[in-house]
Amino acid sequence: MIDKKRITINQITTNNLSLQQAVAAYAKAGLRGITPWRDKIEQAGLATSKAIIADAGLTVTGFCIAGLFTQKGVEGRQVQIDEARRAIDMAAALGSPSIVTVVGGLLPGSRSLADARGFAFDALAETLAHARACGVTLAIEALHPMYAPDWSVVATLRDANDWCDRLGEGTGLAVDSYHVWWDPTAAAEIARAGRAGRLSALHVSDWLPDTRSLLLDRGIPGEGVIDNRGIVQTMKEAGFDGWTEVEIFSERLWAEPADDVLRRIIHGCSATL
Amino acid sequence: MIDKKRITINQITTNNLSLQQAVAAYAKAGLRGITPWRDKIEQAGLATSKAIIADAGLTVTGFCIAGLFTQKGVEGRQVQIDEARRAIDMAAALGSPSIVTVVGGLLPGSRSLADARGFAFDALAETLAHARACGVTLAIEALHPMYAPDWSVVATLRDANDWCDRLGEGTGLAVDSYHVWWDPTAAAEIARAGRAGRLSALHVSDWLPDTRSLLLDRGIPGEGVIDNRGIVQTMKEAGFDGWTEVEIFSERLWAEPADDVLRRIIHGCSATL
Repeated sequence: MIDKKRITINQITTNNLSLQQAVAAYAKAGLRGITPWRDKIEQAGLATSKAIIADAGLTVTGFCIAGLFTQKGVEGRQVQIDEARRAIDMAAALGSPSIVTVVGGLLPGSRSLADARGFAFDALAETLAHARACGVTLAIEALHPMYAPDWSVVATLRDANDWCDRLGEGTGLAVDSYHVWWDPTAAAEIARAGRAGRLSALHVSDWLPDTRSLLLDRGIPGEGVIDNRGIVQTMKEAGFDGWTEVEIFSERLWAEPADDVLRRIIHGCSATL
Repeated sequence: MIDKKRITINQITTNNLSLQQAVAAYAKAGLRGITPWRDKIEQAGLATSKAIIADAGLTVTGFCIAGLFTQKGVEGRQVQIDEARRAIDMAAALGSPSIVTVVGGLLPGSRSLADARGFAFDALAETLAHARACGVTLAIEALHPMYAPDWSVVATLRDANDWCDRLGEGTGLAVDSYHVWWDPTAAAEIARAGRAGRLSALHVSDWLPDTRSLLLDRGIPGEGVIDNRGIVQTMKEAGFDGWTEVEIFSERLWAEPADDVLRRIIHGCSATL
């Protein structure tokens, strides 16, 4: 059974709370970690955020996000790289060991997967030097293939591993059960990442039966069909001993009181991980 | 530019039409092929269906569907195999060279991908003898990973190829652009299938920006982000010289007049394939 002191909450899970409210709610629930999102940190201010988190005794376990290199097209390349660098600066300032890195989907107006992948890879490579200088690992997250149009043309752990092989030091993997559970090669790729010492983050949520929205209808671990326990076990066997991060994009949960949601998360994780 | 005499319509595209209405509409649009669904054939009667299709000069280019072996659980195994055999009989009676084979999702109440895959594979292997005897190829369709919970734990062409390798003669691949476009290994797997002589079917549709439903919001080729032309070209280069089948699950299109939908399909295919 998972120790709740090793559960961290990705702030998107309580998207309607400010940083201050989120930190208070997580601490009240007996949790010790937070992976903040940039918009929330900017709303509160960086120095204030850092103080709020430290005062509550929480650890910054990750930061969201860097990347989306393709979203503004070829012309927007430098803008996106600069944005990624600023996000890396914030992650470093908050003491986060890594930053969740989502490479971006197809280029606007283009149907070429190959072009998008080449473009995103080069931009990521260009961003890496700054991440290394800041001591923040770029934790590449393979997103579910249904997000390939808009968010990530890296859709499998195999791909993310291949990119890390080519990029080298300073890159790692963010393994999210929602994105990879369907892939029978996931366990082998997690083991491969473990051997390379690049397992940076573990995210869990659940795939609900009759999912209503591609983006905002994830479930609490235990509510759906994902074998989160198996994935957590595979990560452990591969040498990962970090936090278990609960990251749930859900309009349904956002509409509920955060204290209740956190209670259900802790219960779900305890029962199924 | 594609010759419309080589475009065939999967009957789900005009789901609100009876077999008779669909055949009339396809023929009126100048099309020559149909891939019928079993429920529509049963409504019209098998012998009547065969006569209707032949009288209109259409070719039966495929048949839907066999499989879904996991859907009734362990206890329902034989029921599902028997269903698949009956579907194969109908495909043979209609003169279809192949039957679209969808292996099924997770077993009810189970979170084990491995169990579902083992169960589905064994049931598929057991079904194969009958398909061989009938001369109907089991065209295994890798479905998009978002359908893994309910419909298919075979989610990539690589997997489908691996299963065909293990199953041998009488199996093939149904390559559907909607399911595989996101996968950078798809072209290599199509080439692999071509070398093995197992490219049985090619389905096209499109992934719409802001897709609203996981199941029923596909687009006409050209409306979305899929590089259908590239996939068609890859299939040709791999030796596939069969029909280009338009298969669109769309509540939006079902609500429109079928003649208009067929006109837009022919236009979309002509413009983008």
